Amino acid sequence: MREALALDPDAPGAPSMVFGTVPALSRYADLVAGASVPVIAVDDAGMAGLSETVSPQGLVAVCSFLDVPLSAVSGSLVAVLAEIQDPGNAGTVLRTADAAGASGVVFTDGSVDPYNGKCVRSSAGSLFHPPVVRGVSAPSAIASLRSAGLRVLAADGYGEADLDDLADAGELGKPTAWVFGNEARGLPPELAELADRRVRIPIHGRAESLNLAAAAAVCLYASARAQRR
Amino acid sequence: MREALALDPDAPGAPSMVFGTVPALSRYADLVAGASVPVIAVDDAGMAGLSETVSPQGLVAVCSFLDVPLSAVSGSLVAVLAEIQDPGNAGTVLRTADAAGASGVVFTDGSVDPYNGKCVRSSAGSLFHPPVVRGVSAPSAIASLRSAGLRVLAADGYGEADLDDLADAGELGKPTAWVFGNEARGLPPELAELADRRVRIPIHGRAESLNLAAAAAVCLYASARAQRR
Repeated sequence: MREALALDPDAPGAPSMVFGTVPALSRYADLVAGASVPVIAVDDAGMAGLSETVSPQGLVAVCSFLDVPLSAVSGSLVAVLAEIQDPGNAGTVLRTADAAGASGVVFTDGSVDPYNGKCVRSSAGSLFHPPVVRGVSAPSAIASLRSAGLRVLAADGYGEADLDDLADAGELGKPTAWVFGNEARGLPPELAELADRRVRIPIHGRAESLNLAAAAAVCLYASARAQRR
Repeated sequence: MREALALDPDAPGAPSMVFGTVPALSRYADLVAGASVPVIAVDDAGMAGLSETVSPQGLVAVCSFLDVPLSAVSGSLVAVLAEIQDPGNAGTVLRTADAAGASGVVFTDGSVDPYNGKCVRSSAGSLFHPPVVRGVSAPSAIASLRSAGLRVLAADGYGEADLDDLADAGELGKPTAWVFGNEARGLPPELAELADRRVRIPIHGRAESLNLAAAAAVCLYASARAQRR
């Protein structure tokens, strides 16, 4: 909510209207006072109809979609979510990408919708931070990011390159798009083939793999660190 | 299941009995054939009574508890889960610690039980890998690990030390116990004070913080990398 109300009125995702219960309007008085859009009081039944959560906070903003076209994404660190279907995972990766300083996050057409309520909540506000793209195919995302000057690295438990070796060789300092695959199946081989490198995170113990959100955190932070040294 | 049946019969966590539905015993025939314990066929109703999941895989092993005393944990990388209450988060951190080569994982007495079904499933088998301690207080865990020669680092969004700076200074290469706090509240200040350093992960974008499992992945892998260079 704070993120939405802080947006410029013409920015993608900017709210056009806010609804709140009387207790919530009082509790968040500082937020509501700064709103440049109509604020409408509703009762509990009205709030229940507006919100999909069981215990809503009592404040709902009507926002425009904020995704941007693929061509608007460039910069030095982009996360591509390819067929990530669990909204909690997708939102967590979006939040991690934001923390790592990503210049964009792409949800390919086989992934959960970034506007899914659970994804929005898991992103903890990050849906409003880096530019977000949705509804594009993974191959077109890879092609567009490559032509924008980014190297494409696929996170792949069976990848031929070790993440630490790439870091030691100075290869993570370049502008990079990371492609993350489905939480259960990983990346389809034909998609992994489109990347410049398939990169595995070293497994030092006896786990077979990392879960998706943990793997994305390790990869994105390895790039963020290398790009700032 | 594969992890449990691979244990030495006298090892902590070793199974004493396996129950299976007829289709599951056939599907996992290779696993069951190697079992050195009694295997008992049950019908679907029997399986439903034995399992807490909605769609059980059809195979249940009765295992002894496998946790070890605090004094049995040393080595160069230990994760301490202090008041982590979501079983999915706790299991994910256990899995990540295993992947990073941890020599032990401690669940303090304010944390979820490592034998919680959802924690076991999120660990993806890692409950059977590094030594696991449970039911000890966080201060006693810190004291014991310090006396075993580990440096104690607390993951803390407001910490005075930056993770990348510590890595650059060569400080992450030493034997380390990482302390991770509650997913919503973080570490209580009095517990953070007990650590040698309070370490923040740099936030390069506009997210306020990382989620717990992502933060643990970044910290544990930063140590794993530094310890192997």
